[in-house]
Amino acid sequence: MIFLNSDYTAGAHPDVMERLLATNLEHTVGYGLDPYSVEARNMVRSACGVGEAEVIFLVGGTQTNATAIDGILRHHEGVLAADSGHIAVHEAGAIEASGHKVLTLPHNDGKVAAEDVERYITSFYADQTYEHMVAPGMLYISQPTEYGTIYSRAELEALGEVCHRHDIPLYIDGARMAYALAAEGADFTLEDIAHIADCFYIGGTKCGALFGEALVVTKPSLIKALFSLVKQHGALLAKGRLLGLQFMTLLEDGRYERLGRHAVTLALRLREAFAEAGYAAVVASPTNQQFFHLPNELIDRLHKVASFDYWGPRGATHSTVRLVTSWATTTEDVDEFIRALRA
Amino acid sequence: MIFLNSDYTAGAHPDVMERLLATNLEHTVGYGLDPYSVEARNMVRSACGVGEAEVIFLVGGTQTNATAIDGILRHHEGVLAADSGHIAVHEAGAIEASGHKVLTLPHNDGKVAAEDVERYITSFYADQTYEHMVAPGMLYISQPTEYGTIYSRAELEALGEVCHRHDIPLYIDGARMAYALAAEGADFTLEDIAHIADCFYIGGTKCGALFGEALVVTKPSLIKALFSLVKQHGALLAKGRLLGLQFMTLLEDGRYERLGRHAVTLALRLREAFAEAGYAAVVASPTNQQFFHLPNELIDRLHKVASFDYWGPRGATHSTVRLVTSWATTTEDVDEFIRALRA
Amino acid sequence: MIFLNSDYTAGAHPDVMERLLATNLEHTVGYGLDPYSVEARNMVRSACGVGEAEVIFLVGGTQTNATAIDGILRHHEGVLAADSGHIAVHEAGAIEASGHKVLTLPHNDGKVAAEDVERYITSFYADQTYEHMVAPGMLYISQPTEYGTIYSRAELEALGEVCHRHDIPLYIDGARMAYALAAEGADFTLEDIAHIADCFYIGGTKCGALFGEALVVTKPSLIKALFSLVKQHGALLAKGRLLGLQFMTLLEDGRYERLGRHAVTLALRLREAFAEAGYAAVVASPTNQQFFHLPNELIDRLHKVASFDYWGPRGATHSTVRLVTSWATTTEDVDEFIRALRA
Amino acid sequence: MIFLNSDYTAGAHPDVMERLLATNLEHTVGYGLDPYSVEARNMVRSACGVGEAEVIFLVGGTQTNATAIDGILRHHEGVLAADSGHIAVHEAGAIEASGHKVLTLPHNDGKVAAEDVERYITSFYADQTYEHMVAPGMLYISQPTEYGTIYSRAELEALGEVCHRHDIPLYIDGARMAYALAAEGADFTLEDIAHIADCFYIGGTKCGALFGEALVVTKPSLIKALFSLVKQHGALLAKGRLLGLQFMTLLEDGRYERLGRHAVTLALRLREAFAEAGYAAVVASPTNQQFFHLPNELIDRLHKVASFDYWGPRGATHSTVRLVTSWATTTEDVDEFIRALRA
Repeated sequence: MIFLNSDYTAGAHPDVMERLLATNLEHTVGYGLDPYSVEARNMVRSACGVGEAEVIFLVGGTQTNATAIDGILRHHEGVLAADSGHIAVHEAGAIEASGHKVLTLPHNDGKVAAEDVERYITSFYADQTYEHMVAPGMLYISQPTEYGTIYSRAELEALGEVCHRHDIPLYIDGARMAYALAAEGADFTLEDIAHIADCFYIGGTKCGALFGEALVVTKPSLIKALFSLVKQHGALLAKGRLLGLQFMTLLEDGRYERLGRHAVTLALRLREAFAEAGYAAVVASPTNQQFFHLPNELIDRLHKVASFDYWGPRGATHSTVRLVTSWATTTEDVDEFIRALRA
Repeated sequence: MIFLNSDYTAGAHPDVMERLLATNLEHTVGYGLDPYSVEARNMVRSACGVGEAEVIFLVGGTQTNATAIDGILRHHEGVLAADSGHIAVHEAGAIEASGHKVLTLPHNDGKVAAEDVERYITSFYADQTYEHMVAPGMLYISQPTEYGTIYSRAELEALGEVCHRHDIPLYIDGARMAYALAAEGADFTLEDIAHIADCFYIGGTKCGALFGEALVVTKPSLIKALFSLVKQHGALLAKGRLLGLQFMTLLEDGRYERLGRHAVTLALRLREAFAEAGYAAVVASPTNQQFFHLPNELIDRLHKVASFDYWGPRGATHSTVRLVTSWATTTEDVDEFIRALRA
Repeated sequence: MIFLNSDYTAGAHPDVMERLLATNLEHTVGYGLDPYSVEARNMVRSACGVGEAEVIFLVGGTQTNATAIDGILRHHEGVLAADSGHIAVHEAGAIEASGHKVLTLPHNDGKVAAEDVERYITSFYADQTYEHMVAPGMLYISQPTEYGTIYSRAELEALGEVCHRHDIPLYIDGARMAYALAAEGADFTLEDIAHIADCFYIGGTKCGALFGEALVVTKPSLIKALFSLVKQHGALLAKGRLLGLQFMTLLEDGRYERLGRHAVTLALRLREAFAEAGYAAVVASPTNQQFFHLPNELIDRLHKVASFDYWGPRGATHSTVRLVTSWATTTEDVDEFIRALRA
Repeated sequence: MIFLNSDYTAGAHPDVMERLLATNLEHTVGYGLDPYSVEARNMVRSACGVGEAEVIFLVGGTQTNATAIDGILRHHEGVLAADSGHIAVHEAGAIEASGHKVLTLPHNDGKVAAEDVERYITSFYADQTYEHMVAPGMLYISQPTEYGTIYSRAELEALGEVCHRHDIPLYIDGARMAYALAAEGADFTLEDIAHIADCFYIGGTKCGALFGEALVVTKPSLIKALFSLVKQHGALLAKGRLLGLQFMTLLEDGRYERLGRHAVTLALRLREAFAEAGYAAVVASPTNQQFFHLPNELIDRLHKVASFDYWGPRGATHSTVRLVTSWATTTEDVDEFIRALRA
């Protein structure tokens, strides 16, 4: 069975496993104070081109978002996000559980427009009752988005400009950052991301690591007592070095971008094969997630060889599906899937 | 350098690593819905002798405590705990961050007495202003405690009896459960723990796993919507099978108890060697943590061959130290340490 | 200057002040345990026709909503509400501050439709990822709504039916309940409200009291330890009798409904006068709040004699305004205002 | 029956009621934006001698403490307080409900010592695991304390000095401030309090008002968005002017201090009468609360003429009681009580 459900269905890239194994019986201090974590933090700073950034490693995406957002916001503030954003939909109320409202904006295939952010903030303060409402205290976006789309560098800069003009931080959820950096037509680098965002994370779990996310606070004063906050959120891994070792592996020799490219290449091959078969992608996604409206009988046929997610009916005879590749998807998997599609 | 700082200074037991490696490139669904997690949950239920228990795997101890306690308590309730308890001291306010007060009891080498629990609850409700105070809504204990001591079965039963008579659940933090089960003089089994506690966890991180804790709710109605609660706490691992695979390995063939015995045996050898050298243990700990008051020059000397924790001065010339063994401590390490002690 | 800004611009009805004055130097116990509060609670139960209801008096609306909702919801649940609802917009994030998400529904002049509630709940549980999302745990509506509209008895019953079929409580914010009961065409009584809702409050602050709201839990098991919860929310008035005395006064001799009728009668006279002048009300409100689109010069002219709220521009030449009457609005005020309108 | 249970058993001082009555049918805007509230805030600033202080009026003590503390603390911080402090005992977990731990210090008749604060903070940061613990982020004291005792100016200055050297704010709960200012031997003024504390409140509820507390933030940058925070805590009174009018009345012509003196004078007469009868006060309280150990039969006899609080048994034959006077206690009440004592 071919798995195209998500980018976290396999373990870790073999190079990651090898390093974990090679160091397994070493003893080090915990909580990320070990030499591997120190080295990995420096590698993150270097890859981001922000020498003074504060870097801390966490285990998963929801806990990283919840911790960072809780650390950034003051009591009376909420976080602006697309109404399709992960924090607005699929984190089981983690943001609200730490006391903050998610203030939703309309989305265009997962993306928020700088003008909508501008309009929200200016309308908010134009309302004479604004002190009775939750103030927009930061902006959350995901790159790539939950729909596989990406913001161009110009779009990111426009969002950053609006945020900074209104003195609110810009936070980027980079759970699938490797696939954004490798996206078709991507015109930005990790350094660009780091210079535009006030805080963001480089996703490991979906991009080759066994687990782990690297939270980068480019302006360290943004979050006070970050270590304690991570601990308070239950997000401080005892054996912190496991995170350091993994990010060392991902960030050396361009491996992170390479894993991203692999997945994106395969995703674009799937997109092309569907287009040839008469099914244009329903979202213009240049990354590892692809969405199609397909006839139900075709879906049933494909489900015989592959596992992938059903996203709901589309009229009486069709449905929307999502196909996701990852660093772990093989060329053989994709070839076999395309053969089944053409059969 | 010999590491005796803690039981989370190395990676995972080789058998655990082997299984992670063997399954690494398999694809499965996430969030613990995969077959390995299903199997591991059944193995936990079986090991506990509670067929209907709800079992869920989390990554670390603080997040497990915070999630379970938040799930058990109602809004007006707090959690009773020894004032030396991990949740009272070393979780950076995680319990309070989810809205609940830790109600502290005096401790005796880390243990709380059933009479003190009884006294707290009866005094509480005897106070005519009790509705203005935080109600004791559950009892938290750790087995073994932060001081390495253990509750006997009779002591556990006495605590359970007080709790159930007053209709409050008993929760046991089993971060180091393997070392309790293997403790010198331990007169209880995992089944006993499961029958006495309403909720507890079997520690993996400190007991042979790379990371992971198995939360067991022996009365499933105790926590509503456990899966969503874990997600909300940022504690749901995407690649849930990693937890399932590890607990399958720990629980098969008596490996969990065996790893515990290995560490306890070495700890007791250390204790004996110190006693012979004239330093009786300052806490009667039958587990893998041992505490001594030592002359500062001896500490300096030992620190040349071993890393271990300094717990503070004891008069002008002595200090208290903690030595911890684990599944990863070798007989050679302990031999070498004892030679240094005797030198 | 005539005040038509809101229904909390004056003090209390003179009968309320008289009673507070008459009892002012009496001493009683605090926190609502005094005989007046006991009597008032019985009067509320009697007025609602629910002998076993739990009744507690709080000071203001936001605190009553936040306390009740926090008490009803479990950790993983949110509250369904119209996206125009007070809790969704104008409570400065009080619901989120207690850890819960407001799940918004579309509104029709402030009202939610039973079909939308039904659709939300069934779609929610039909989504296979629902355990990653915030579960709908209760429904919040306001009667009358923030737009002055009311739910008919049939509409209330339909909402109650949907809620109870899905086993979620229905909560009614009755900040302006007196004006709903006295609304043009109202076909429900306070007893109907109490029988349909699981929890609701009878507003005092806007309906003749100096301050105060009567929270009624018709199914007492719905909120555990209500007294402690109110205290924890900082909502327990030390001199609780002040609330009891006020509700005794409002509920005796039909005064509550009478004050409501007075305000509604005057509001309908305003509506009629505007209609005659060519300005139909823009919301079909049968209560004490009326909304109009008016030419800006007319607004300027009316603002010379009256204070009322400007709700935003309506094209280049018009704006929307809100006029609110209350128990404290006099016939003379309304006559004078209408003369100014006609001038 | 003479009431000596507490200082909130009667309504308001007649001058307060008179002003509420005189303005009752006036209309003003809400939420403290009315002219009376503006004037009252200026009077508070003037009385405190801090022209730039931010002042806001709330309804009750628990909500004032919870709001201010939540506003001052960052996510990882807790509040230091005497273990007898109101926030530590009698606020039903309101501080924890907003996410913060109360870090307790030993008390001496309700007072904390500057040395204990110093020791706590320096020990905290000397502990190498301090980042895993809740950081002391502010100090809470009450003046007078829950035991009726007061801090001298030198003691307040010593506490302020420790706090400011460690860069943590000093907050004073002044629920009974009038009785502190009027205390026997008081060597401080309201201006002293305002200059030493970073934030404090002037109690109204127990000191002549119907209800209400004046929160003073002497360094306005200490709490961001105070108005919104108060609203979020459900503590913003719609008819804010009621609070302004009351504080105008209390603060004019030295009425606040005068009411305090009245109560303290009567309390000291009680103390003297008990001393003459052979019962020395068990706490050296110079304010309106007095504590005695009395034979149970005497308590029974006194309970026939007066209501007062029983604080628990003291051996087999005696018990501790608390007697509280207030602005509302009359000389006749005290005379009658003393006659009963001597009978």
